[in-house]
Amino acid sequence: MSEAIQTLEGWYALNDFRAIDWTAWKSLTQQERNRAEDELYSLLAQYQDVEDQKQGSTAFYSIVGQKADFMFMHLRETLEELNELETAFNKTLFAQVTIPTYSYVSIVELGSYMAKPGTDPMQDPDILARLKPTLPKAKHVCFYPMNKRREGNDNWYMLSADERRGFMRNHGMIGRNYAGKIKQIIAGSIGLDDWEWGVTLFADDALQFKKIVHEMRFDETSARFGEFGEFYVGNLLNKDKMTAMLKL
Amino acid sequence: MSEAIQTLEGWYALNDFRAIDWTAWKSLTQQERNRAEDELYSLLAQYQDVEDQKQGSTAFYSIVGQKADFMFMHLRETLEELNELETAFNKTLFAQVTIPTYSYVSIVELGSYMAKPGTDPMQDPDILARLKPTLPKAKHVCFYPMNKRREGNDNWYMLSADERRGFMRNHGMIGRNYAGKIKQIIAGSIGLDDWEWGVTLFADDALQFKKIVHEMRFDETSARFGEFGEFYVGNLLNKDKMTAMLKL
Amino acid sequence: MSEAIQTLEGWYALNDFRAIDWTAWKSLTQQERNRAEDELYSLLAQYQDVEDQKQGSTAFYSIVGQKADFMFMHLRETLEELNELETAFNKTLFAQVTIPTYSYVSIVELGSYMAKPGTDPMQDPDILARLKPTLPKAKHVCFYPMNKRREGNDNWYMLSADERRGFMRNHGMIGRNYAGKIKQIIAGSIGLDDWEWGVTLFADDALQFKKIVHEMRFDETSARFGEFGEFYVGNLLNKDKMTAMLKL
Amino acid sequence: MSEAIQTLEGWYALNDFRAIDWTAWKSLTQQERNRAEDELYSLLAQYQDVEDQKQGSTAFYSIVGQKADFMFMHLRETLEELNELETAFNKTLFAQVTIPTYSYVSIVELGSYMAKPGTDPMQDPDILARLKPTLPKAKHVCFYPMNKRREGNDNWYMLSADERRGFMRNHGMIGRNYAGKIKQIIAGSIGLDDWEWGVTLFADDALQFKKIVHEMRFDETSARFGEFGEFYVGNLLNKDKMTAMLKL
Amino acid sequence: MSEAIQTLEGWYALNDFRAIDWTAWKSLTQQERNRAEDELYSLLAQYQDVEDQKQGSTAFYSIVGQKADFMFMHLRETLEELNELETAFNKTLFAQVTIPTYSYVSIVELGSYMAKPGTDPMQDPDILARLKPTLPKAKHVCFYPMNKRREGNDNWYMLSADERRGFMRNHGMIGRNYAGKIKQIIAGSIGLDDWEWGVTLFADDALQFKKIVHEMRFDETSARFGEFGEFYVGNLLNKDKMTAMLKL
Repeated sequence: MSEAIQTLEGWYALNDFRAIDWTAWKSLTQQERNRAEDELYSLLAQYQDVEDQKQGSTAFYSIVGQKADFMFMHLRETLEELNELETAFNKTLFAQVTIPTYSYVSIVELGSYMAKPGTDPMQDPDILARLKPTLPKAKHVCFYPMNKRREGNDNWYMLSADERRGFMRNHGMIGRNYAGKIKQIIAGSIGLDDWEWGVTLFADDALQFKKIVHEMRFDETSARFGEFGEFYVGNLLNKDKMTAMLKL
Repeated sequence: MSEAIQTLEGWYALNDFRAIDWTAWKSLTQQERNRAEDELYSLLAQYQDVEDQKQGSTAFYSIVGQKADFMFMHLRETLEELNELETAFNKTLFAQVTIPTYSYVSIVELGSYMAKPGTDPMQDPDILARLKPTLPKAKHVCFYPMNKRREGNDNWYMLSADERRGFMRNHGMIGRNYAGKIKQIIAGSIGLDDWEWGVTLFADDALQFKKIVHEMRFDETSARFGEFGEFYVGNLLNKDKMTAMLKL
Repeated sequence: MSEAIQTLEGWYALNDFRAIDWTAWKSLTQQERNRAEDELYSLLAQYQDVEDQKQGSTAFYSIVGQKADFMFMHLRETLEELNELETAFNKTLFAQVTIPTYSYVSIVELGSYMAKPGTDPMQDPDILARLKPTLPKAKHVCFYPMNKRREGNDNWYMLSADERRGFMRNHGMIGRNYAGKIKQIIAGSIGLDDWEWGVTLFADDALQFKKIVHEMRFDETSARFGEFGEFYVGNLLNKDKMTAMLKL
Repeated sequence: MSEAIQTLEGWYALNDFRAIDWTAWKSLTQQERNRAEDELYSLLAQYQDVEDQKQGSTAFYSIVGQKADFMFMHLRETLEELNELETAFNKTLFAQVTIPTYSYVSIVELGSYMAKPGTDPMQDPDILARLKPTLPKAKHVCFYPMNKRREGNDNWYMLSADERRGFMRNHGMIGRNYAGKIKQIIAGSIGLDDWEWGVTLFADDALQFKKIVHEMRFDETSARFGEFGEFYVGNLLNKDKMTAMLKL
Repeated sequence: MSEAIQTLEGWYALNDFRAIDWTAWKSLTQQERNRAEDELYSLLAQYQDVEDQKQGSTAFYSIVGQKADFMFMHLRETLEELNELETAFNKTLFAQVTIPTYSYVSIVELGSYMAKPGTDPMQDPDILARLKPTLPKAKHVCFYPMNKRREGNDNWYMLSADERRGFMRNHGMIGRNYAGKIKQIIAGSIGLDDWEWGVTLFADDALQFKKIVHEMRFDETSARFGEFGEFYVGNLLNKDKMTAMLKL
């Protein structure tokens, strides 16, 4: 039996992707569209309140291409809160003109850490800030789910803990070259959704998404062991940008 | 020819996942919504009666993310009863505002057991309680289907019975570490549905789902031989919670 | 070049799975529903006439879970007759409240046989009865399509005819243990549909489906070479049971 | 680098599969249905004109099972003509009661040939007749797309040209045993659609489809290197048969 | 760790595929159809303005078969501009009669290059012309996404940089044989969409698409390492051709 590396977990995450049904949007009266936008912006304000109170965080981005028109990424303390967010959105008039296209459930995770002896890492402010982060307002977002491969000789979970640590150390060094350019939220989803991790990257220069994932692909950790799902990429949204997007 | 390990079977299981069509729900009149809820709660009461009479059991949970809004897990003595449950639900007004998204048919199974010599295990109250269980009312549920792999050198069904017993013993020891935290229902579905097993986990702390599935993935049984389908995770529902969820 | 084992073929088969659109069904008037049921039962009577005249056979079963609500399995002498059956059903009022979910085209097959020297097997009543069978009215049905694997060292079609015969002999011996419990119709579909065979099992005890497929999975024929599609399981239907199912 | 075998190409092919929306068909008035059929038969007559002038060819078949209700196979000199055929069909009233289900774009191909020294094969009437054929009016059709496998040791494109020629020679000899029973149109689709070839078989006895594909599967070319997509099988259509099919 | 080959990136690309809902198109009044076409042609004119100002480029092609009816390929400096193009199109009346079927997000890429020592390649007009190209008006287009394989011994990303350079050199020599016949735009999409590259080919003779992809398949780079997604092929569109296509 191979040894599992300890993980620390923080807030649960829900990445929620939706398309806009433009024909339905246009079929509303101007008055209805105003009400729909008001309801939406009221939700945005509630999300901001929660974030201001450090009770969670929400990112709001458009998505390029036909996979979706926008994404919410919600971080909350419990699965019940994520469920309530979904239900509250679904009851709005705006939700009636949207089509759910993809979602991902996970929990923010630190894969390994150095705890000071005799201390509780969940009391360490630096660790807490990484487990319960305020999501950045970077200009671009990139989301993808991934697995570690378990095929023939390329079986991550049959490696020794030392081998895995060695691979991850090299992998992490690539990441460090992107410090300041990319902020990444790694969320574990084994037992929660269809892949083992959900990765959300934030950057002001979208090209950095390509640069880091491309560079990592040549690293043995990804080259031999990485399995990737769908990639979503998009641009920062807020009330003003959404108003412009929805204006007919 | 490899030797099949004997199994014992109890109640048939139907995990039934559905989304709510919120636009349709909102298009009903308040009177219709009342009637729809009354019909639904009347079904819930019938399920409870069956459970009280030890003729079956039903769990009712919301699902987080877009895969579904809620799940019924029904246990019954026969496939005919499961079919009747489906049909009765489908005829309700509430069913008209739901969209079927996934279902899974299986039968509660004990993979191997120690029968006292000269006794019928189906007369053993401990075994019967595991084969025909009353589903817990834990705060969270996790469902996923799985196979044992049959690929190249990683072919579970080509192992000797002794090898399989050894693997399963280690696997079971991980499970025992979660006693009291997780209650699991293993249901066999070879010949009944698309995977070989359907696994339903119940826990008051949803993080334990991630912990146990993660830890098991490093065990050779899962690392080399486990193939996993979609994962669904959710929160306990009942009449009061459903009323709140459906309130406009 | 490996030697192909000779096969004998009988009636063409169409397994036709459909869901009921309950909202559409309920939106019909009582008079329309009566007419829809009359048309359906008239078709059932026609199928019975064909069966009585030994010109074909039809089985009618509900399906458990969301994959379908019911299945027709039609056996007929020609593909044209199967097409006509489909078209006649599609023109009925009842068809308007159903949604096609899956179908499978195949031809009843005997994989290998012992012909008495100098005789035509197609004149042998025992063989004819197996190639052009009257489908049983067992309480339960199980359908699944399957392939023989062609991957790396597990390539069925690269085995010698002797090796294949040896594997099939062991496989067949498992099947014989279920004589009297399970009646199976093996239908070849190479060149006709997406898998190589369609298997339909009939049993009064649905648990036997799980028992036989589970036991066979440990047999090298299935363990190394079996690839399986979706499994459908259901309960016997007839006019009375359908009337009860459709009653609002 | 392995040597590519030269190919010759003739007419572009479009296999176009569609289902009939029977509820929509029945919702038309008798007058509209008459007009819809008239438009359809007018297109059939145009296709026949093109075929009579040796400018192309069209086959028209029903499809058994739920994958489609009918298929057109059009051969034309250019992709523009195929596009125009689609658009003209889509503008008809009949198209409004059909649902596109699958299509395949390819070009009729001869995989290898013996050109007489100093001659242009495209001036050879025998070769031209095979590259720009008039499709037969056989009673049955079978369509499937396929690839040559590129996996591990079973990589067709890493074989030497001699090895490939040897495999194909054996493969071709099986085909010759079906001369007179089956007419096959092989069309290359590398760079045009999702598989490498589209194969269309025509036969008066549909069982021959199963016989030839089954026999070939034991040939190393298919056993080790053949990857197959969906199979479609059907019956000859024409104006009279279509009129009967559509009659309410 | 294998060494990543440096890449240069130019404009972001969006390949946007849509089907026409012909029933919806026909249900518009002539006046509405005129307005819908006017809006569409106004967008085409805007795209041309951007191209004339060297701020981007747009190609417009029909697609043969049921996968789509037409494709836009837009090249722009930023992801925000691509999002705005989508949104502007979605708000048109014409968009209401179209159905999104597929899209692909990428960025024009040069995989390796020879920079003159001491110079900035992004100041080199030849390189800029390839990174920020004006798309050709060739008669035909072909689009497909692709990956480099990472499986067992066929793992592109585990090769040394020298091995990869050797493979790509041979691969490139095939491409050079098609100079003047095919113009190709290679766009990287690691981190941006589901495959690693999106390839768009332009040619006046569509047969060249088949010739080049077929020939390359025998090259070890494709034979062992190429994984291909869906292929789309089509014909040049412009205002006049679109008017003819949409005319009822």
